[in-house]
Amino acid sequence: MTTKETAEAFTAMLKAGDHEAAATKFNADDIASYEAMEGPMSVCRGRDAVRAKSDWWYANHEIHNVTSEGPFVNGNQFLVEFAMDFTIKATGQRIQNSKEWGLYTVRDGKIVEERFFYPAM
Amino acid sequence: MTTKETAEAFTAMLKAGDHEAAATKFNADDIASYEAMEGPMSVCRGRDAVRAKSDWWYANHEIHNVTSEGPFVNGNQFLVEFAMDFTIKATGQRIQNSKEWGLYTVRDGKIVEERFFYPAM
Repeated sequence: MTTKETAEAFTAMLKAGDHEAAATKFNADDIASYEAMEGPMSVCRGRDAVRAKSDWWYANHEIHNVTSEGPFVNGNQFLVEFAMDFTIKATGQRIQNSKEWGLYTVRDGKIVEERFFYPAM
Repeated sequence: MTTKETAEAFTAMLKAGDHEAAATKFNADDIASYEAMEGPMSVCRGRDAVRAKSDWWYANHEIHNVTSEGPFVNGNQFLVEFAMDFTIKATGQRIQNSKEWGLYTVRDGKIVEERFFYPAM
């Protein structure tokens, strides 16, 4: 698969709400995932670690709505824009109209890096 | 300067409309610039080549409005979202509400790579 084909198939699954299945299908074994923060938690490596981070996020946030726009491809990378409406379970704080971007790097039809951009919390 | 400081200073100049001065101040001598297209025009290298591409773009498009949102920092990279309203001079076609994202990579307070993402034309 080309980067464009990978990007379109992956994003179509996100748009359909199949976030977990998309990660299972497209994340490379050695994927690296970078959050926009300082320190050792900013990166996690490997399918299992990325899956655990995702599970943690979904367990600690109540999702009211997510929309995904894209993909926007450039070379071996593509960008997806997410608009989210969610509540942080620990505090009850609801965050509407938050935007976030995922930048994905593709190698041989698999996502080898994901890097997220969003406003400073 | 840290990546965050560089990102904020650069984006502040974009928001003030000082696009050219921002590039002059922050682009590294060996900057690489990647457009979202196939072929040899997809990349240009060096301050002068990037400046020429920018000059070409501004000469061939009439800008009605540009807004810049960000920066959104992750590690040594940051993202800026642009919303543009412009007319392609050659065709007279006006494109309103177009969105584009610039992904910038920083080294030693200078931008060493810029990569643009936008809907396929």
